[in-house]
Amino acid sequence: MSAESRPAPLTVRELCARLKVTPPAGHEDTLLTGINTLEAATEQEVAYVQKERFVDAARDSKAGLLIAAQGLPLDRSNVVYLKDVMDGVLTVLEHFHPSPAARAFVHPTAVIASSAQLGNDVFIGPQVTVGERARIGDRCRIEAQSVVGDDCELGEGCLLHPRVTLMHGTRVGRRVILHSGSVIGADGFRYEATRGRLCKIPQVGIVVLEDDVEVGANSTIDRAGLSETRIGARTKIDNLVHIAHNVTIGSDCIIVAQVGIAGSTKVGRGVMIAGQTGIADYVTIGDRVRIGGRSGVYQNIPSGSEVIGSPAIPVKDWMRFVRFYKQFSQYWEKMKGFLGTRD
Amino acid sequence: MSAESRPAPLTVRELCARLKVTPPAGHEDTLLTGINTLEAATEQEVAYVQKERFVDAARDSKAGLLIAAQGLPLDRSNVVYLKDVMDGVLTVLEHFHPSPAARAFVHPTAVIASSAQLGNDVFIGPQVTVGERARIGDRCRIEAQSVVGDDCELGEGCLLHPRVTLMHGTRVGRRVILHSGSVIGADGFRYEATRGRLCKIPQVGIVVLEDDVEVGANSTIDRAGLSETRIGARTKIDNLVHIAHNVTIGSDCIIVAQVGIAGSTKVGRGVMIAGQTGIADYVTIGDRVRIGGRSGVYQNIPSGSEVIGSPAIPVKDWMRFVRFYKQFSQYWEKMKGFLGTRD
Amino acid sequence: MSAESRPAPLTVRELCARLKVTPPAGHEDTLLTGINTLEAATEQEVAYVQKERFVDAARDSKAGLLIAAQGLPLDRSNVVYLKDVMDGVLTVLEHFHPSPAARAFVHPTAVIASSAQLGNDVFIGPQVTVGERARIGDRCRIEAQSVVGDDCELGEGCLLHPRVTLMHGTRVGRRVILHSGSVIGADGFRYEATRGRLCKIPQVGIVVLEDDVEVGANSTIDRAGLSETRIGARTKIDNLVHIAHNVTIGSDCIIVAQVGIAGSTKVGRGVMIAGQTGIADYVTIGDRVRIGGRSGVYQNIPSGSEVIGSPAIPVKDWMRFVRFYKQFSQYWEKMKGFLGTRD
Repeated sequence: MSAESRPAPLTVRELCARLKVTPPAGHEDTLLTGINTLEAATEQEVAYVQKERFVDAARDSKAGLLIAAQGLPLDRSNVVYLKDVMDGVLTVLEHFHPSPAARAFVHPTAVIASSAQLGNDVFIGPQVTVGERARIGDRCRIEAQSVVGDDCELGEGCLLHPRVTLMHGTRVGRRVILHSGSVIGADGFRYEATRGRLCKIPQVGIVVLEDDVEVGANSTIDRAGLSETRIGARTKIDNLVHIAHNVTIGSDCIIVAQVGIAGSTKVGRGVMIAGQTGIADYVTIGDRVRIGGRSGVYQNIPSGSEVIGSPAIPVKDWMRFVRFYKQFSQYWEKMKGFLGTRD
Repeated sequence: MSAESRPAPLTVRELCARLKVTPPAGHEDTLLTGINTLEAATEQEVAYVQKERFVDAARDSKAGLLIAAQGLPLDRSNVVYLKDVMDGVLTVLEHFHPSPAARAFVHPTAVIASSAQLGNDVFIGPQVTVGERARIGDRCRIEAQSVVGDDCELGEGCLLHPRVTLMHGTRVGRRVILHSGSVIGADGFRYEATRGRLCKIPQVGIVVLEDDVEVGANSTIDRAGLSETRIGARTKIDNLVHIAHNVTIGSDCIIVAQVGIAGSTKVGRGVMIAGQTGIADYVTIGDRVRIGGRSGVYQNIPSGSEVIGSPAIPVKDWMRFVRFYKQFSQYWEKMKGFLGTRD
Repeated sequence: MSAESRPAPLTVRELCARLKVTPPAGHEDTLLTGINTLEAATEQEVAYVQKERFVDAARDSKAGLLIAAQGLPLDRSNVVYLKDVMDGVLTVLEHFHPSPAARAFVHPTAVIASSAQLGNDVFIGPQVTVGERARIGDRCRIEAQSVVGDDCELGEGCLLHPRVTLMHGTRVGRRVILHSGSVIGADGFRYEATRGRLCKIPQVGIVVLEDDVEVGANSTIDRAGLSETRIGARTKIDNLVHIAHNVTIGSDCIIVAQVGIAGSTKVGRGVMIAGQTGIADYVTIGDRVRIGGRSGVYQNIPSGSEVIGSPAIPVKDWMRFVRFYKQFSQYWEKMKGFLGTRD
């Protein structure tokens, strides 16, 4: 957001009108210029508190207005209580940090193939490359130095941050967000022993990202060997994640940073995979599965399960084992006698 | 591959001639336009089946022609059986998805230093930067927005996908493939306490990639402090792999996604390192070692070993331990009495 | 460093004058052209030896001059012994591999917003993008194809290698080094259930990198939701590291490759985090903590602790457990009888 186009300040009264609540008495005319954390907010800023454990910080906050979850004991007057705090926070963010309005613009340094098609109000930043026959939907925004390969298709309202690569043939739905450095559609990793050596098997499938997918910085999603690697609608992928060829991920999943998913694995809908977890190839993960951080998944996981560990096991079994592991030094005195070792 | 230059369809008869097999009776004139998976193939596409476990999918496939491993019971007529399925699949892929022909081309937006030397039929895409004294061999293809630093050398027939960085002095053999976002030759990570603080030690060595190496998207291979970091011929490296300074990797290795290899470690020939494994610094890994996924290797591993786990131990020992770990909750009832704990 | 501008050779006499030591008798006139490893050094090159375990290699080295730690038994004449070997090595490196001198230069292909401010002697390479109101301090060097977003601030003497992304509003101190592919200031990963679906929470904070920070190739540091993600002075971050939104890292830390640190975690000063370790969100790590490689940290760690493992426990407890794990197969014979299992 530009410093010059910074949105107008709002009084508490005006902001509360947007939040559809009564302004706190005596604070109606306080002027608000932005939103910040409880600790950093000034008297001209809004802050918010959603959870009990932040109540002390909320009491001490200098914020000019607090948005708080109903029932929190805050003991201060410049507070509005909301049933859905995050709805209110989004309203505030949307005022003070609006998304750039869509507009038709092509930077003169961009290289756009003559057969490429740009929709209405498409923004193309400096030094972007758009390949042959690429189709870019209305209101897409392609930031500096991104590469959109030949035959790519982007639905309306997509945002490519700077330095994104879409390899040829990638199909992207609507309102997809790709962060800087992400690489969508590089070759899958497959070699086969034939013709007297290990041969690279050409990877001629594509990647499909459905509507509202988001992919984090420097993550990689490989194209399929044949057919598709597919990421379901509304699935959110964090930074430095690796998704191999022919993987299928359902809708509404959350995949945290540095996760790796090996080839041909199928992940269901609404799955949560915490950071640094790895999933082996040809595995099936059911719907609504939750996988803890740093897990290693080598086998199918039925829908609704909650697992963790490497190899991944049910959470309560893992917690039982971990208590043993953490206390092991004190158990060892007895165990070593039984095991007949002096080590 | 461009939609407009799509290769001509082939009849089953023509394709079988290329595969050097007799076409299946009654299907000789079926027209084939491409290759696809068993599930996705249409009646105008080839599919293939190599393993018993895909026989059901092969029977149900709508493919116009199946290439199958000898001995699979497929119970359908439009099949050709091959001794080496992947050889046949490669033949099909090479017809329908040919590599772009080498041609001399320099995009007008590329910035090529005057002292750089380009071989014959070198392709330089949009917004590429080629540094001083760089030498690029015949038939290399440098895609959009890659950076080839000063004094780099590339052998013939290399392919740099979009947005690759070769830092200065990198030496690349013949037919090397580097995927988008890979960074070859960034500084190694070394700091030493001297002069009253932690000082960065300049990294003045180089990276050498021998013939036929492939490096995946967003992987990083650091330059040596002095002398070389070296990746042996035909070694294949997947996405998001980190290889530190002064590492030496032999020929014909397979290094799967998100592996990390710390400084000065030596990896032998024909080694397989599965995903997310980490290897400590100053370790020596022998030839033909196989290291399972998510392993932690802190010690030398003799040639021919197969290890897994963190720390890595022989596979059968790890499997023994893992059975205990998975059953631990049920063992605990007995163990806790013995160990005198109520926890 | 360019081949043409290669620094002049030095005699052993001249080099020893710089090192402030007496040249070894009989070798004063040997001409030295560079520095290399013990194994690769020629008679025209310097090498160095700091540790006992490299004494054999040092004896066999062909180097024209050895810089050695005092007290090492080397049994050769062309050696100078230094109390601080690395100080001497830095002196040699600074002569043979000088940093490029700062100079004012803007490549004609760079796109610099009219409201951006460049200090004195700023170097801007090919195809760089610099956004609106960005301020770039004296003697900064921005290499090819880097993107400096709107409202970024860089202190004096920073070095951005090729293909770095600084997202809008990032604040960078003095002498910061960012390696190729690093992405500073991408959105943090936060979604909340509101308005009937999982909503992206706009990330409107910034990243602050204090003086002398270094960030490795393809690492990612996310902007804060509100306020700041902050990396303390002199902290060094290796390749492919992920640092999430709102993380605070103190000064003088070392963070090795492929580490991941989740949101809002606080890391103290002088902390060492070895490779592939993950730290959960909302954790506090004290000062001078050392965390071993491949650890999983889920809880606060007090200052001065040394931990390893996943979950991380004190090093001596982990080593006790690991001895058991490595010997487990031989213990199992006794254990399985006690546990009443035949498995």
